[in-house]
Amino acid sequence: MSGNTFGHVFRVTTFGESHGGGLGVVVDGCPAGHPFPHARIAAQMARRRPGQGKLTSARQEADAVQVYSGLEPETGRTLGTPIMMMVGNSDARSHHYDDLAALYRPSHADYTYDARYGLRAVAGGGRASARETVGRVAAGALAEDLLAALHGVEIVAYVAAVGDVELPAVDEATLTRAQVDASAVRCPEEHVAEAMTAVIEAARKQGDTVGGVVRCVVRGVPAGWGAPVFDKLTADLAKAMMSLPASRGFEVGDGFAATKLRGSQHNDPFVKDAESGQIRTTTNHSGGIQGGISNGEAIRLAVAFKPVATIFQPQQTVNRAGEAVTFQARGRHDPCVLPRAVPMVEAMAALVLCDHMLRARLATMDGLRR
Amino acid sequence: MSGNTFGHVFRVTTFGESHGGGLGVVVDGCPAGHPFPHARIAAQMARRRPGQGKLTSARQEADAVQVYSGLEPETGRTLGTPIMMMVGNSDARSHHYDDLAALYRPSHADYTYDARYGLRAVAGGGRASARETVGRVAAGALAEDLLAALHGVEIVAYVAAVGDVELPAVDEATLTRAQVDASAVRCPEEHVAEAMTAVIEAARKQGDTVGGVVRCVVRGVPAGWGAPVFDKLTADLAKAMMSLPASRGFEVGDGFAATKLRGSQHNDPFVKDAESGQIRTTTNHSGGIQGGISNGEAIRLAVAFKPVATIFQPQQTVNRAGEAVTFQARGRHDPCVLPRAVPMVEAMAALVLCDHMLRARLATMDGLRR
Amino acid sequence: MSGNTFGHVFRVTTFGESHGGGLGVVVDGCPAGHPFPHARIAAQMARRRPGQGKLTSARQEADAVQVYSGLEPETGRTLGTPIMMMVGNSDARSHHYDDLAALYRPSHADYTYDARYGLRAVAGGGRASARETVGRVAAGALAEDLLAALHGVEIVAYVAAVGDVELPAVDEATLTRAQVDASAVRCPEEHVAEAMTAVIEAARKQGDTVGGVVRCVVRGVPAGWGAPVFDKLTADLAKAMMSLPASRGFEVGDGFAATKLRGSQHNDPFVKDAESGQIRTTTNHSGGIQGGISNGEAIRLAVAFKPVATIFQPQQTVNRAGEAVTFQARGRHDPCVLPRAVPMVEAMAALVLCDHMLRARLATMDGLRR
Amino acid sequence: MSGNTFGHVFRVTTFGESHGGGLGVVVDGCPAGHPFPHARIAAQMARRRPGQGKLTSARQEADAVQVYSGLEPETGRTLGTPIMMMVGNSDARSHHYDDLAALYRPSHADYTYDARYGLRAVAGGGRASARETVGRVAAGALAEDLLAALHGVEIVAYVAAVGDVELPAVDEATLTRAQVDASAVRCPEEHVAEAMTAVIEAARKQGDTVGGVVRCVVRGVPAGWGAPVFDKLTADLAKAMMSLPASRGFEVGDGFAATKLRGSQHNDPFVKDAESGQIRTTTNHSGGIQGGISNGEAIRLAVAFKPVATIFQPQQTVNRAGEAVTFQARGRHDPCVLPRAVPMVEAMAALVLCDHMLRARLATMDGLRR
Repeated sequence: MSGNTFGHVFRVTTFGESHGGGLGVVVDGCPAGHPFPHARIAAQMARRRPGQGKLTSARQEADAVQVYSGLEPETGRTLGTPIMMMVGNSDARSHHYDDLAALYRPSHADYTYDARYGLRAVAGGGRASARETVGRVAAGALAEDLLAALHGVEIVAYVAAVGDVELPAVDEATLTRAQVDASAVRCPEEHVAEAMTAVIEAARKQGDTVGGVVRCVVRGVPAGWGAPVFDKLTADLAKAMMSLPASRGFEVGDGFAATKLRGSQHNDPFVKDAESGQIRTTTNHSGGIQGGISNGEAIRLAVAFKPVATIFQPQQTVNRAGEAVTFQARGRHDPCVLPRAVPMVEAMAALVLCDHMLRARLATMDGLRR
Repeated sequence: MSGNTFGHVFRVTTFGESHGGGLGVVVDGCPAGHPFPHARIAAQMARRRPGQGKLTSARQEADAVQVYSGLEPETGRTLGTPIMMMVGNSDARSHHYDDLAALYRPSHADYTYDARYGLRAVAGGGRASARETVGRVAAGALAEDLLAALHGVEIVAYVAAVGDVELPAVDEATLTRAQVDASAVRCPEEHVAEAMTAVIEAARKQGDTVGGVVRCVVRGVPAGWGAPVFDKLTADLAKAMMSLPASRGFEVGDGFAATKLRGSQHNDPFVKDAESGQIRTTTNHSGGIQGGISNGEAIRLAVAFKPVATIFQPQQTVNRAGEAVTFQARGRHDPCVLPRAVPMVEAMAALVLCDHMLRARLATMDGLRR
Repeated sequence: MSGNTFGHVFRVTTFGESHGGGLGVVVDGCPAGHPFPHARIAAQMARRRPGQGKLTSARQEADAVQVYSGLEPETGRTLGTPIMMMVGNSDARSHHYDDLAALYRPSHADYTYDARYGLRAVAGGGRASARETVGRVAAGALAEDLLAALHGVEIVAYVAAVGDVELPAVDEATLTRAQVDASAVRCPEEHVAEAMTAVIEAARKQGDTVGGVVRCVVRGVPAGWGAPVFDKLTADLAKAMMSLPASRGFEVGDGFAATKLRGSQHNDPFVKDAESGQIRTTTNHSGGIQGGISNGEAIRLAVAFKPVATIFQPQQTVNRAGEAVTFQARGRHDPCVLPRAVPMVEAMAALVLCDHMLRARLATMDGLRR
Repeated sequence: MSGNTFGHVFRVTTFGESHGGGLGVVVDGCPAGHPFPHARIAAQMARRRPGQGKLTSARQEADAVQVYSGLEPETGRTLGTPIMMMVGNSDARSHHYDDLAALYRPSHADYTYDARYGLRAVAGGGRASARETVGRVAAGALAEDLLAALHGVEIVAYVAAVGDVELPAVDEATLTRAQVDASAVRCPEEHVAEAMTAVIEAARKQGDTVGGVVRCVVRGVPAGWGAPVFDKLTADLAKAMMSLPASRGFEVGDGFAATKLRGSQHNDPFVKDAESGQIRTTTNHSGGIQGGISNGEAIRLAVAFKPVATIFQPQQTVNRAGEAVTFQARGRHDPCVLPRAVPMVEAMAALVLCDHMLRARLATMDGLRR
């Protein structure tokens, strides 16, 4: 109802404001008996963290996840009970934000939060801060660990465009996170990464910001996950991605480009794979999802992120009283969210797919008899 | 869990297969005392119906909605109890489909349904048929009637692209459904509509199909609807649209084009409107939603639809046994879903916004005291 | 939110008013591939129906369930899609109810519905009619068929008290529905059934009504179903039973009598069953549920039903304007709901347990690997 | 799905094991702008705490609730975002529990947790500990503060029976928490309280335990709260209460005693109150709820609690291997949960009613227009 919970079976509820007592997540519905993946969570949290390089904000957020419940003390295995994970807020310089209380920063959520709630936590953007995603990334890393353990699923996202610089198609069948992380901008082609970096740097020097596109591939999802009507995989992935801060668009498979194809070009013919005996498609315009249900091919998606709203140029706006004021941002902010959005997109994909993996177990009587 | 329900407060559950006993919807959570909008529902059902012209399928579906519950018999007002609406399946020529049972049509849901459920209703696509949307359109028309009654909200969708033919920007501030319906293709610019029609006709003659883009504008949503984290308006609208058959992409505001703008170009400055005294933005790159919450400007979105999977050319595929077979479609199918997708997009927008309208009433203590 | 849906995985939504277009249910989440149990549903519907004898109302409701969706036409197997079942309203003499519109019958829901909704369907009690339970009983019969197919679960309810006449303990380990149905009052001990019948007849002759207690035993539930906190089996069974019309109390295991025992008397010692090798308890004061989770023993529960509110004696009440009026009921009404409550209690138990059976499949990684 | 969340609009999710990193709750859906009731929460937490006297366990749990999110730092008002409250686990002597890991204590949840999850947190009962209720009591105190602020609702529970000692009817129209707390046993009649105390003391001396009944009255709920079918107030209150540890039975209004009345005795006649002009009933056998919806009279309910399972006498049981062992409990445990159950019952009543208060705001178009 209030929209802080995501998922049906594997169910996460995040809480916390940017500068409050902490930001965290309760994961309910994690099956019992799984070795808790501390290392995988730490790795994804490190990728999400600001202050990883000059491309991202200089803020130092330790983002060390502490687990408060849901694990067997002796073994670290999951108990099947809610897993609460929290990150403290150590680096809170809230005096930076005092003078923001009364004005509405353009294209931030200040005005809309006030319109909805009548008040808001001003410091650091409060609940609207991208810092809210720490809980998502921690829970997502747990989700992808379950996906890997039960089905060998692999999720790899990467920066496919920054401003006008676009990455040509890469080999998504073999792409690894190591390849993605080879550049700070998280684009797996070195020369494209350099061009993207130049664009970001140019924007930063002008006190400006840039947007871009993250693409994501998911390998290893078997045929049969998803639900046919409202909870199509396409729909749940779209919701997941469009709930990320600054997201403005979503595509699956060929996306908007599919609208320019004829059916005869877009359809993916079925064949039987001689080696595995499995039914496969010879092309994958559908992005691994047909009728909302996975078909066993790689799931391919893209997310558009707008340029960051916080620019370091004077902007005209109004305060709560509606009076015109000039706003000049201060502090530490990313000129481009794309590199840090990569683990966020992976996390949201993992949350959707883990939920549907579990749901798929209940789809047939035969499956229940097994 | 099984994904046949949408919404939290205004909650719809659809049921039915294309050629079964009927297709319908249960709407739970409609407030009591509202005059039931039979005419509005009939109008939108008529726009959704196939057989409206040569651009769409020649099937004659009466699609007369019958209401079985939830209305006061004497007055037709809503009772506050579940409203069940159903459309019968009169035009079921299921023998057309007998030979489809054993093969997997490319880019349809045949294979994925079998993978998930182990069986499927073959005739007419069963639950995967676009006919499932009758329940959505009926419920959506009710939702938009509530939105209109309580806030004067107006929702207008239109075809913005068919294949390579794109409609230049139209005046979304004044666009009406009558203007949209002036052409069978539902594009409000006459010469563009003609070009689109030509593309569709050309495809039909070749036994082929085309995709396109539907755009939608929602006027009159006040500031403060939406939720800040997972249930952002952007996220819920994305899920709603990406749950429609054949949808492949979603944008809000400037969408993917926003990724090519600088922050200084994309940010929407706030001003106080001299006349109304309300805080407004001078531009609307955000598409009326900031931080997941409406800001009082028009909500603008786009949905990409792939070309219809049913083409009238021989296609290579496999049957259930994995044997290679040639599939030649027969029967009546749209070469382009776009015109009929217009009321579907409006319906899904209405369902999301009606739900959030109701949820917004519970956001503040001040609101509850009123 | 509006409370017409029950269950999480096996999820039922009922709709319909007593004298509207029909009463029915949508079952979402039924696994695919199950032979639809038409006979079992018909049998339970027949037991729920009024007009079974002079103990119950003389109304003739055909209550023939028609299935509109969710079944494979050729085989009758479940498709995994929503199953909509409906019963028409053929015997609607709504003129009987015209003069009820303006007054509030004592201990009916007339006043409270008006207070909540501002209007109500007057005829036959509208949504508040016990006739709403047709959907529950149909869905419950499907649920118990799944429970029987997958785990051999058996559910048997019976009338344990009518007014002051109480049935001494019966052998719940062997009790069958046939034994229960040996008397019209559905009490398995003949002489007690006769005494109950006499009480009901005496009340009827005085234009009065009586209440009583239904007990229910569920055999075959394995250890491990249920959830530890809010969705304890005790809690979900309590909600299920207390949602039935006229229910006023609920007990599990020894219930209120347990409050008079010492812990040393009430605790159920564990032993290993020599034959099966299973851990069992030597007594079953707990009623098969410990910490909210089944322990493999028989689940035992009781539900208290108040005397029917419709009596055939003049009663003082008020009309909508608050004016004092005398109300004299007419028409056909049960002097005692207990016999017909038996299949309702079984249905609600089945709905709870089927939902938890499915949920239990997702509890452990070991279970998911199987 | 996993049952750690309660409520629809006012939605609480608890987490934590008895001896883990902390026990807490996330409250989602609290309206914005409410002054956070620290004092009320502290008061109820103090009443829930063990170690209040010789009747309850000697454990010292500080149970100081810390709030981590959801409050405006400057004013302490609620932000409308999730409120996370947690209590640390300072007094964890887990070595007491080491030897419990391998055996199943009779009538505890050890065996059933193992059956469900394959493992469990042994120390202090883990998630099955009554300590889980700290989150409920904290959230419930917030809920009752909203109920009081918006409608002047008052909730008072008290111990109505301990073993065979029963409290005769008290004046529930005027009963206060101060009167209830006049005795450590929380029975408002001094001489009955003394008799109850004697029963508890006698049991303690024998290493035994006793059960009892808590009754609760809720004053000030207006007519029109509740939902007519599955989410009847009766049903939701039953679920709430039967989710409390050790609960075995539930009644509303006259409860099981109603089964022995005739309809003519049980029906509550309506009258118009001369002073207020409101429609009232002259009796209240219904306990303030008719057809699942409040009628404006006091809500009256009772909850049966079994005797505590931990007794200090040797008990026969089995270990995980199924071998017979003798179990002798050690440590600190209440001989009777009743006094501490009083604030738990109040908390659960508050959670149900706060949720329905909010839901009732959406029931009618007239209400939405206001």
